[in-house]
Amino acid sequence: MNEHFQTLLSRPGVRLERIVSDGQVSPPGFWYVQAEDEWVLLLAGAAALEYGDGTRLELTPGDSLLIPAGCRHRVAYTAPRTVWLALFCAAQDGGIPR
Amino acid sequence: MNEHFQTLLSRPGVRLERIVSDGQVSPPGFWYVQAEDEWVLLLAGAAALEYGDGTRLELTPGDSLLIPAGCRHRVAYTAPRTVWLALFCAAQDGGIPR
Repeated sequence: MNEHFQTLLSRPGVRLERIVSDGQVSPPGFWYVQAEDEWVLLLAGAAALEYGDGTRLELTPGDSLLIPAGCRHRVAYTAPRTVWLALFCAAQDGGIPR
Repeated sequence: MNEHFQTLLSRPGVRLERIVSDGQVSPPGFWYVQAEDEWVLLLAGAAALEYGDGTRLELTPGDSLLIPAGCRHRVAYTAPRTVWLALFCAAQDGGIPR
């Protein structure tokens, strides 16, 4: 199954997305470095994030975290039918428009 | 148990809260009429909302909805250990600062 993105709410400087992953991961060597802060909640399934400093973070349903703007990260693992809620908002320092 | 409010994220014009209710309801005759749009996701438990037009909406985990700024509503029912995620953001028309 393709990864599915649904925008639940969109306002100036705020975007709420529901993302359904089905085994998708970031391509090898690919890193997200975002202009916005991203708050993530894992609603179902399982996932692992990797950070630029080598840290690996396993996520199970109910786990949430803030990925600050500029933080190098990638999705290293997603289980079948993994559901994320992701809230993107302007970085606390103002950030760069995306 | 008291109702418990935790602010997960706060930015200009955006506030994300985790709310744990334990049977609490809005007082009889009380209506919320908010200056902000509120997007709500029921994470656990069960709840019912009532609107000013008499509509009653039963919520089970996974249900989400947008309560637009200015919309009269009240919480008519919450089960023990009901967990809400609530995203408050500036109304689409600009709204009134809260």
